[in-house]
Amino acid sequence: MTKLSDFFSRELPRVNVTIEQELAHLNPLVKEVGRHILLSGGKRLRPMLTILTARCLGHHGEDIYPLACSLEFLHSATLIHDDILDNADTRRGRKACHLIFGLHRTVLAGDALLALANLIVARYDIPAMNYCVAQAIMRTATGEVEEIAQIRSPRPDRAAYLEIIRGKTADLIRAACSCGAILAGADEDLIEHADSFGLNVGMAFQLVDDALDYAADHELLGKPLGGDLREGKITLPLILYLQTLQEYQQRTLLHKMAHDELSESEMKRIVDSIQEMGLDKKVREEAGEYLQLARQSLKHFPGTPQKSLLLEIIEVVRSRKF
Amino acid sequence: MTKLSDFFSRELPRVNVTIEQELAHLNPLVKEVGRHILLSGGKRLRPMLTILTARCLGHHGEDIYPLACSLEFLHSATLIHDDILDNADTRRGRKACHLIFGLHRTVLAGDALLALANLIVARYDIPAMNYCVAQAIMRTATGEVEEIAQIRSPRPDRAAYLEIIRGKTADLIRAACSCGAILAGADEDLIEHADSFGLNVGMAFQLVDDALDYAADHELLGKPLGGDLREGKITLPLILYLQTLQEYQQRTLLHKMAHDELSESEMKRIVDSIQEMGLDKKVREEAGEYLQLARQSLKHFPGTPQKSLLLEIIEVVRSRKF
Repeated sequence: MTKLSDFFSRELPRVNVTIEQELAHLNPLVKEVGRHILLSGGKRLRPMLTILTARCLGHHGEDIYPLACSLEFLHSATLIHDDILDNADTRRGRKACHLIFGLHRTVLAGDALLALANLIVARYDIPAMNYCVAQAIMRTATGEVEEIAQIRSPRPDRAAYLEIIRGKTADLIRAACSCGAILAGADEDLIEHADSFGLNVGMAFQLVDDALDYAADHELLGKPLGGDLREGKITLPLILYLQTLQEYQQRTLLHKMAHDELSESEMKRIVDSIQEMGLDKKVREEAGEYLQLARQSLKHFPGTPQKSLLLEIIEVVRSRKF
Repeated sequence: MTKLSDFFSRELPRVNVTIEQELAHLNPLVKEVGRHILLSGGKRLRPMLTILTARCLGHHGEDIYPLACSLEFLHSATLIHDDILDNADTRRGRKACHLIFGLHRTVLAGDALLALANLIVARYDIPAMNYCVAQAIMRTATGEVEEIAQIRSPRPDRAAYLEIIRGKTADLIRAACSCGAILAGADEDLIEHADSFGLNVGMAFQLVDDALDYAADHELLGKPLGGDLREGKITLPLILYLQTLQEYQQRTLLHKMAHDELSESEMKRIVDSIQEMGLDKKVREEAGEYLQLARQSLKHFPGTPQKSLLLEIIEVVRSRKF
C-alpha cells in the first residue's frame, strides 16, 4: 500500500460521515437523490486535494471536512445535471438519478446541492472562499455549455477543446486546492501556487481521461471504448487523428459526427487507428506537461509529509490505466 | 402616477443596465439564454425591494445595484428550470427558453445564473450576505421539490401548502429584503425585521397569485383560469373548496387530479364554485393577515420616504388584480 492510498483510506470514512451530516440539512425528497449520487462511491479526489492542500500549508483543524465535502457536492450536482443532459443510463455503476427519481426531482436536487455547497462555504465567513467557489461553478457550467455547442458543430479546434476541459473539469479541481490554501490562511503567492497546482492537475486529469476513452483496458473501464466519439465529443485524441487526414476526409468525418451518421465499424476503425498511431500516448505526453507545471507549483509548498502525497497524486494521474 | 410607480420607473433603467453589465460576465452561449429570460420584462419586485430596504436603512451607495440584480438572477434561474419541468410554452409572453435554446443549454444556463448570483454577492465581502443567498436558493429548490411531490399525491394539507409557498416564493423575497438590510449595515434586530417584512410580503404575494389563478380577470391575466388545477397543484383556494365537500367527493376529486383525469367541464365547475363561494376572497383575506405582519415589521424602520414606498408595496400586493 502506498502512503497515498493509506491516506485515502484513513480519510475516506471521515469524508463520508461529513457528507452524511451535511446531507441531513436537505429536505428528505432532495436528500434521497443526494445520497444516491454521493454515496455511490467515487474517488473523492476533490475533497482529498482540499484536505491535503490545507494540511500541507499548516491548517490542522477539524473544520476542513465540510469545506472539502462542499467541493464534492458541487461535483455531484454537475454530474446529475450532466447525466440528464447526456441521457445517461448509469453513473458509477448505479442507475442514473433521473431514471430513479424523475427529471423534476433530479434537476431540483442538483440545484439544491449547488446551494448546499455555497451554504457550507458561506459558514466559514471567509469571502474569498465564497468567491472562489461561485466562480468555479460558473466556469463549470460554461465549460459544459461550450462542450454541447461543440457537439452540434464539431471542429478540430485545440484551443476550444482546452478551454472546454478547463471549464468542465480543471476549474473545480483548482477551486478544491485554492479553498484549502485559503482556509489555511496562506499568503497570496502561496494561494496562487495552490491554484495553479490544482488547475494543472485538473487539465492533466481530463486529458488522461480523454486518452483512456480511446485506449483504456476497456474491461477495467467498464464501458466500451470510443464513448466520446459516439457522443460526438471532439477530444484531443480525435483532434490529433483529424490532423492526419486530408481536408476532404476531415470534412466528411466532422459532417458525419454532427449528423450522428458514423457507423459502428467506422467508429471502431477510428479507435483502432488512434491506438495504432499512438495518439493516445501523445495525449498522455501533453498531460505530462501540465503535470510538470503542477510539480513546479509544489516547489513553493513547505516540505511536509502532505507535500509528498501531493507529488504522489501527480504520478497517479499520470499513470492512470482506467 | 403614484410615488411607487414613479420610483419603479426611475430605478428600472438602472437595474436593467446593471443586469446587462453583469450578464457580460457570462460566456456568449449562456448570455443569450440569460438575456432572453432577463430582458423580457418582469416586475423586478425583488431588486426594487432590495434597493428600497437598503435606502430606507441608510445605505445610499451606488453599489446596491449589482446586489439587487443578483436576486433577479436567482429568480430567473428558478424560472427557467421551472419552465423546463412544467414543460411550459411561454414565460412573460415570450417563448420559453428551452424551446428556443434546447434543454441542455437551458439547464446549464440556469446553473450559470445561480452561480453568477453567488459570484456577485461574494464580491461584497460580507459573509452574512452569502449565507443568506445560499440559504434562499436551497429553500427555493426544496419548495419546488415539495410542490412536485404534492402534485404526485395531492392532499388538502394547509400546512404543507404554506411550507411550499414559503420555499418557492417567500424565501427569495425575504432574502431580497435581508440582503438590503445587511448591506446597509443595519443591526441584528433591524435585519430581522427586514427579513420578516420580506417573508410576509412574499407569502401574501403567492397567496394572492393563487387566488388570482381562480378568479382573475383572465383577459388581464393572459392565460385561462384554473391553471393550477390543470397542473394538479393544490393551492389554498382548492383546499378551502375541498373542505366544503363530503369525504367521498374529496377522495374522488383528489384521485382524478393525481391521475390527470379531470375533464374540462369538471374543472370549469370547480373554478365557478370557488368564485361563487367567494373562496378566492377568503384567500386574499389570509394574504391580508400576512401583510398585517409585514406592516408591523415596518414599524421598526426609520420614517424615511422609502418607508412610505414599502408601505405602498404592501397595498399593491393586496389589491393586485392580475
